[in-house]
Amino acid sequence: MKNYKLILGQNIRAIRNEQKLSQEKLAEISSLHRTYIGSIERGERNISLNNIVIISKALNIKLCELLEGIE
Amino acid sequence: MKNYKLILGQNIRAIRNEQKLSQEKLAEISSLHRTYIGSIERGERNISLNNIVIISKALNIKLCELLEGIE
Repeated sequence: MKNYKLILGQNIRAIRNEQKLSQEKLAEISSLHRTYIGSIERGERNISLNNIVIISKALNIKLCELLEGIE
Repeated sequence: MKNYKLILGQNIRAIRNEQKLSQEKLAEISSLHRTYIGSIERGERNISLNNIVIISKALNIKLCELLEGIE
């Protein structure tokens, strides 16, 4: 089983960097905590569906794009 | 905020029915518990990334297809 949490975390970090958003800014937009964003990006969290959707909306990208490379 | 859990649950149920799989059979293939599958299908679970991937693999469909209608 691939490390899906890490792939998702790396996708989030890459897209966030492309958009020149800090973790703090993404935290503010998504109403998630900055340290939680950090741990997601490091692949430490088995993130739930609701929070995956919240982050895709905060980054203004499609869910499928956020999950690219998973599977 | 839409009820993403319910949309996912309905997608899983529809695809499982199309494939003529019982909840018991999907539980067996995915190694998840049958009652857990039931509660996911009823939209009662804020399912985690790992389990979303496990179910998409058990149903042999793409993650994006499983998440259709969410967003």
